[in-house]
Amino acid sequence: MAPLTADRIRHGVVFRLKHPSGSDGERDFLDALRALAAIPGVEEFELAREVSPKNEFAFALTMEFADRAAYEAYNSHPDHTGFVEGRWVPEVEDFLEIDAAAL
Amino acid sequence: MAPLTADRIRHGVVFRLKHPSGSDGERDFLDALRALAAIPGVEEFELAREVSPKNEFAFALTMEFADRAAYEAYNSHPDHTGFVEGRWVPEVEDFLEIDAAAL
Repeated sequence: MAPLTADRIRHGVVFRLKHPSGSDGERDFLDALRALAAIPGVEEFELAREVSPKNEFAFALTMEFADRAAYEAYNSHPDHTGFVEGRWVPEVEDFLEIDAAAL
Repeated sequence: MAPLTADRIRHGVVFRLKHPSGSDGERDFLDALRALAAIPGVEEFELAREVSPKNEFAFALTMEFADRAAYEAYNSHPDHTGFVEGRWVPEVEDFLEIDAAAL
């Protein structure tokens, strides 16, 4: 994992779905989520399993942006806002956003 | 950030301290925390600021391990357990552990 330099922001979200583990619904949601990687400015897109027994989340999504402006462009991009309204809100049970920047 | 392959585990902790921001106590704690990077098996050690307004945490620590065995060796290493008992428990206000592995 390349260290965060200067203005870079690593955006992270841990989440769990309403869909049962291994279901078609889960698979379809994750496929739709992966499409966000194509939004301009998104770097180092990674979808992983969350494996700590210390929390209830099932997945960990991370991506990086060159700076705050790139992050905000992503946040307001219609593909992102459309995904949030159409898929995230109805299909995600719980989530937490965690963003990191150079100390 | 290199993608997680096979058995790798990325261990993360977001936290905030009892020490005021910018204080000597905060500085001393973070210096002691950085010493954990020397424990055998620890890779890609990174201490960052947590910058999302969506949570109350102030710092984000991440490190990677080649596999579960390396992670468990770290967890039980006396430098780690000593740090947890002597520094983490008394000086951390709140924290959340998040571990990621390949999907």
